[in-house]
Amino acid sequence: MKKLINGADTVLEESLDGFAAAHADILLLGAERKFVRRRTLKPGKVGLLSGGGSGHEPLHAGFVGRGMLDAACPGQVFTSPTPDQIIEAAEAVDTGAGVLFIVKNYEGDVMNFTMAAEMTGREVASVVTNDDVAVERSTYTTGRRGVAGTLIVEKMVGAAAEIGMPLAALKALGDEINRRTRSMGVALLPCTVPAAGRPNFTLADDEMEMGVGIHGEPGRRRVRLASADAIAEELVGAILKDLAPEPGSEVLLLVNGFGATPLIELYLMVNSAKRILEGAGITAARFLTGSYVTSLDMAGVSITVSVLDGQAKELWDAPVHTAALRWGT
Amino acid sequence: MKKLINGADTVLEESLDGFAAAHADILLLGAERKFVRRRTLKPGKVGLLSGGGSGHEPLHAGFVGRGMLDAACPGQVFTSPTPDQIIEAAEAVDTGAGVLFIVKNYEGDVMNFTMAAEMTGREVASVVTNDDVAVERSTYTTGRRGVAGTLIVEKMVGAAAEIGMPLAALKALGDEINRRTRSMGVALLPCTVPAAGRPNFTLADDEMEMGVGIHGEPGRRRVRLASADAIAEELVGAILKDLAPEPGSEVLLLVNGFGATPLIELYLMVNSAKRILEGAGITAARFLTGSYVTSLDMAGVSITVSVLDGQAKELWDAPVHTAALRWGT
Repeated sequence: MKKLINGADTVLEESLDGFAAAHADILLLGAERKFVRRRTLKPGKVGLLSGGGSGHEPLHAGFVGRGMLDAACPGQVFTSPTPDQIIEAAEAVDTGAGVLFIVKNYEGDVMNFTMAAEMTGREVASVVTNDDVAVERSTYTTGRRGVAGTLIVEKMVGAAAEIGMPLAALKALGDEINRRTRSMGVALLPCTVPAAGRPNFTLADDEMEMGVGIHGEPGRRRVRLASADAIAEELVGAILKDLAPEPGSEVLLLVNGFGATPLIELYLMVNSAKRILEGAGITAARFLTGSYVTSLDMAGVSITVSVLDGQAKELWDAPVHTAALRWGT
Repeated sequence: MKKLINGADTVLEESLDGFAAAHADILLLGAERKFVRRRTLKPGKVGLLSGGGSGHEPLHAGFVGRGMLDAACPGQVFTSPTPDQIIEAAEAVDTGAGVLFIVKNYEGDVMNFTMAAEMTGREVASVVTNDDVAVERSTYTTGRRGVAGTLIVEKMVGAAAEIGMPLAALKALGDEINRRTRSMGVALLPCTVPAAGRPNFTLADDEMEMGVGIHGEPGRRRVRLASADAIAEELVGAILKDLAPEPGSEVLLLVNGFGATPLIELYLMVNSAKRILEGAGITAARFLTGSYVTSLDMAGVSITVSVLDGQAKELWDAPVHTAALRWGT
């Protein structure tokens, strides 16, 4: 295992301390590092709270700030945050308008966020994301996994919360964006959890895992390495089959690296995916390209397509000021 | 070699096409993909032009846009752009106030930019960056290499150009920022140039290359893998020894991933580097953390320290709107 760390036990806390120092203008770290919170809350705004296992940086703490999340709870690497983390974060961001939880569909996350919602006594609603079309059930999941599409939900719901949308409407909006959003990924190389010290799966030199999960969970099948175009065909094909957008639709195209994939390859995938979408009569009207929902040092890519209407475009374009996404401010 | 490509010969052009499509609001691609140009030029502003071998994305094309570069010339992977690329780009961005070249100190780059400056007949000045303290001479270099500090020069000079600073003053400013900026890096894993198909150097499972260059050039020495703190001590120590900032100085701390290094590790390095700076009486007043000056899929990190004064802080904070850096807009 080759990592820039001091010891497997302190990776998360040292990384969070560096993150909080680098972005002190935007956010602060809660007591015992239980959550990352937006520095300046907006009274009367619904509090937006997400979280999940660490190792997917910048998701979720990198999306805390104006126009997106109010707080994020980082669990240990690939481990759900605990209910008490979530309860303390909810208390920290509830300014009277209630709290919306945005939760990726994994059993541990759903259980702990549900428990926290019941225990906190506050007005809470939840959006559970499940954008991964690769498999219907997975290692840690009943139903589809929540993956990179989650950041699109967080961005758009965050923009709506910022302009005063109430809790029930935000919940409905989040569910609607999730329904319009689909993803699928492929791994070329596995990742290594620091505490494990060895890769969490193995792939031969000529193999890739098609439909991989963001913790290295098995996907649809293990196949021989293919060209970028063939990979894009399979990922976009599976997404479009499931999403079935109207021809003529506009979409947001998110090409997401898993952590060890260079940007030159991600933009090459943008080129392939865009051409395939065009062939299906779909226009990529917005783009996001980079490593945003990662799996430690896994090499590979996921593609996410989210159908846009006028409101969604406006919410996507609205100002955002976080560590990982920033525009209009 | 596991890469998301269609063939080694078309990596650059396909990636540039994807890049230009994704950022069509900011930039456009010149004929035959000889350069990437800011979409809307500002008449009477000095044109800022950089470039170099590809494989370091987002450097340089990712820094084209308002408040930074007017154009960038991408050479083939790890290969200098040709003089005719540079000449055409200079013609495209010269609106009458002359053109400033920002060139990393590699023999091929310096030669081709110098040749272009002589041949273009336009008013041209050049800033050559050489911020890497690792070695005094390197594989492709007479004198020190220009590495991640280059983006700091591009950002600050770009902000000054935007508010109307003339060519000679921009050249002096760029030289001054370069003098205040030092970097050093370490590689944990090598990178693979697509056309070569195999890693460009080898490292044992317990080895790292201390002082590595951004093309995988040898550094100071090959040593056993060490802790993040020990690595940060050596990198920051070498930088401070050479830079000799006044105690009490404020600096910009850039922790830069080489392409395959996860963000969780980069922020952990921020934490280490910041503490070491504090121990030397130096305050990190600005931070930039991410993979900005990369070496394809190399794993590792570089640290850059740039001494700030009031003007430098203002130039750093000024609005920028590029594919890879964006704030205030």
